Amino acid sequence: MKTAHLRPELSRPHLARRVAAEFVGTGLLVTVVVGSGIAAQQLSAGDAGLQLLENSIATALGLVVLILMLGPVSGAHFNPVVSIADWLIGRRGNGLPGRDLGPYLLAQIGGGIAGTLLAGVMFDTAPALSTTDRASGGHLVGEVVATAGLVLLIFALARSGRSEVTAAAVGAYIGAAYWFTSSTSFANPAVTIARTFTDTFAGIAPASVAPFILAQLVGAALGLGLLFVFYPTAARTAGNVVIPVEAP
Amino acid sequence: MKTAHLRPELSRPHLARRVAAEFVGTGLLVTVVVGSGIAAQQLSAGDAGLQLLENSIATALGLVVLILMLGPVSGAHFNPVVSIADWLIGRRGNGLPGRDLGPYLLAQIGGGIAGTLLAGVMFDTAPALSTTDRASGGHLVGEVVATAGLVLLIFALARSGRSEVTAAAVGAYIGAAYWFTSSTSFANPAVTIARTFTDTFAGIAPASVAPFILAQLVGAALGLGLLFVFYPTAARTAGNVVIPVEAP
Amino acid sequence: MKTAHLRPELSRPHLARRVAAEFVGTGLLVTVVVGSGIAAQQLSAGDAGLQLLENSIATALGLVVLILMLGPVSGAHFNPVVSIADWLIGRRGNGLPGRDLGPYLLAQIGGGIAGTLLAGVMFDTAPALSTTDRASGGHLVGEVVATAGLVLLIFALARSGRSEVTAAAVGAYIGAAYWFTSSTSFANPAVTIARTFTDTFAGIAPASVAPFILAQLVGAALGLGLLFVFYPTAARTAGNVVIPVEAP
Amino acid sequence: MKTAHLRPELSRPHLARRVAAEFVGTGLLVTVVVGSGIAAQQLSAGDAGLQLLENSIATALGLVVLILMLGPVSGAHFNPVVSIADWLIGRRGNGLPGRDLGPYLLAQIGGGIAGTLLAGVMFDTAPALSTTDRASGGHLVGEVVATAGLVLLIFALARSGRSEVTAAAVGAYIGAAYWFTSSTSFANPAVTIARTFTDTFAGIAPASVAPFILAQLVGAALGLGLLFVFYPTAARTAGNVVIPVEAP
Repeated sequence: MKTAHLRPELSRPHLARRVAAEFVGTGLLVTVVVGSGIAAQQLSAGDAGLQLLENSIATALGLVVLILMLGPVSGAHFNPVVSIADWLIGRRGNGLPGRDLGPYLLAQIGGGIAGTLLAGVMFDTAPALSTTDRASGGHLVGEVVATAGLVLLIFALARSGRSEVTAAAVGAYIGAAYWFTSSTSFANPAVTIARTFTDTFAGIAPASVAPFILAQLVGAALGLGLLFVFYPTAARTAGNVVIPVEAP
Repeated sequence: MKTAHLRPELSRPHLARRVAAEFVGTGLLVTVVVGSGIAAQQLSAGDAGLQLLENSIATALGLVVLILMLGPVSGAHFNPVVSIADWLIGRRGNGLPGRDLGPYLLAQIGGGIAGTLLAGVMFDTAPALSTTDRASGGHLVGEVVATAGLVLLIFALARSGRSEVTAAAVGAYIGAAYWFTSSTSFANPAVTIARTFTDTFAGIAPASVAPFILAQLVGAALGLGLLFVFYPTAARTAGNVVIPVEAP
Repeated sequence: MKTAHLRPELSRPHLARRVAAEFVGTGLLVTVVVGSGIAAQQLSAGDAGLQLLENSIATALGLVVLILMLGPVSGAHFNPVVSIADWLIGRRGNGLPGRDLGPYLLAQIGGGIAGTLLAGVMFDTAPALSTTDRASGGHLVGEVVATAGLVLLIFALARSGRSEVTAAAVGAYIGAAYWFTSSTSFANPAVTIARTFTDTFAGIAPASVAPFILAQLVGAALGLGLLFVFYPTAARTAGNVVIPVEAP
Repeated sequence: MKTAHLRPELSRPHLARRVAAEFVGTGLLVTVVVGSGIAAQQLSAGDAGLQLLENSIATALGLVVLILMLGPVSGAHFNPVVSIADWLIGRRGNGLPGRDLGPYLLAQIGGGIAGTLLAGVMFDTAPALSTTDRASGGHLVGEVVATAGLVLLIFALARSGRSEVTAAAVGAYIGAAYWFTSSTSFANPAVTIARTFTDTFAGIAPASVAPFILAQLVGAALGLGLLFVFYPTAARTAGNVVIPVEAP
């Protein structure tokens, strides 16, 4: 890690590996969200509460695993707002280099869409644009809160040298946020886009995407603001925020 | 930590940061409790058991995360009885200084109320005083037991040098106490006050607040009594009980 | 711990403290089991599966917490078969001294009964002998399996120097064993006796107690047999099996 | 561990102990899967979603415990594709020796069948060939995905020196995969074979076994392919993949 501070570019896996990890990780995250949503919808028809319980438990567990699985490769962002925040606050240190930001975001968006399609193949559900409108005022406040909390959590743990608990903490956070936000906590622009391509439990209508993403960006900014209130020296230790990236 | 014992005031973040952390942390804790209660009530209408299961799982997970997120800033008390106990048993060491106690309590109470309001905004639920009377004899015994266990747990872990598991342990404790106490384990005066301002699943009628808080104070005293039975030398290591506070 | 091997009696808290910890810990364990059972029965009336899910999750979480809370005091046995096994395989090392075995067992049985009564006070349920017969052949095999697994787990972790995960592992084990054994995994003679004094969800008829305890003893013997197959040198490191006991 | 790299055969328990551990561990894993499935079916009749929730939670918790319990003995593979992958990628290091592969696989298959029978004894359910056909196209894709993820997870953690979280991660993975794959994630040829011998919730018709195992082998190959993309130097550190094997 000493070396990482001096010449971070030497301690990262090749960009192609990292981008592949963001593609596969975001993809499988969406597969977990959409797939478990379809399973819940089929098995607990008519019981919306039980469906969300099943969907939220599966997502929380799956997210922990995916961060553990791919964190050392790419940092396991799986989320454009995390990559953007990492770049923003780590620009003078070992945050995500600006030249890597575009590839990360494209991989997350493309991977997410692939993840929706994979869930559809497994559950014999044809791809279709979602008809579930979600962009009410309360839901948008929910997305602001959910994303602010997520960004604050990830960088607070990085800032205080506790990234070894980030995987479990992020899983627990999303598991709770499914319930305490009215929007069921998308908190992720790539996942939001990907979830438009399925007209099942976890879908979101295309018309709701732009307001959701805007709310998520506002939430990310709020989360970074709170980070500087609570952990004012964060910028010096930014980088590798979800899981420390190690050279292979 | 050596320095902390000699001049603890030097190792803590500024009081304003710590008070802000208690405000935000207690607020989000109440948002989790009230918000997930509303979601459970809406999605699992008519199934009280499933509602409490959803509410308790979300609260347990959310509490773990909030303690991890803000513990290094303020100690993540989020609870007046924890702050009072920390001050009482740590007066000769590095417990909460007496001059900080008032600001901590005000932040917890104010933050909790703000948390109820935030949940209402997200779920489009107008604030209203709760009409749920909870102050039966059995429920008050429940609050004594719940608070005694919580105080004993937090300080037992601090006393035996295992504060790194406190976040997970406190979350697990509350998750269980929702079920094994008849009162669903408020165990927190600030949260009790805050929960009067919503007439939804997690609400409590104002008339029940005073007996609940009295029972919680009795429970806290009982918990400290048990602490001195089981960990008689606790006073020497008190302070920073939930998560060690680190200088930023 | 070096000292503990030479003069273990110097490194343990006074017997009175340890016995009090076994009384309180076993008592609260039974309060969790019986109390959450009553809550589940009241809130999810008519849905036996959901009741057991609520009861098992609360018990698993509560057990983890109690072991963490009191492990450093008494070892957090809370179970006569664990105390007996600790004495048996640790006789030449730092296992439970023979003279402490009687007080441990009495504290566990007395504490368990007190725990049932406390649950009854909280839930306004009068004590009554259970009328739930449980001693079928399949259930007794279930108790053998459940207790063998519990004993093997605890001492395997102690044997391999991983006692820091014992609290979580024992909680997870009981959470699973509620479901994979037909008897819902009592696996504990003191808890079995205590559960005769409530005619609610978690009760067991007095006539079923003797066969259950016999099955548990057979299971404990089987568990120790498997321990010596898998960890043949266990005897050298026995003692302080659930959580290392530390001097206060 | 240094010694293990030079002369791995000296650091492993005797083959008989390891094979016994694979037999008992795979057996109890199947007992957990089949037993909790029967319990769920009996207690939550008519509610397929709740049944799967109960079954998946019990399995996830039980799997964590079994890996912790027996990992130091045999590596806690409990799964032919894990043993085969360990042998394949560790052939030049300290992977499973080729001469041990046959005994491991036989123990896993035999243990699994014994586990089904034990569940039947506990729940008074006669053994019978399952009549549940599962081999649809979507389910087979599910098995490919489930097994690829499992293999990638286990060896990614081993590759990056984090095997201490493997037990929890594998349990979480299977808990999620029950829901996000359409096949409920068998991902294990030995468990697949064993589950043909019960005509209850967790059963699988014999005619579905061959396609399932084929899909699992394809998934394992895919998982290894992804491993070499993300962790290209894995081969050097293969061996003892689930839990480091220690000499007793």
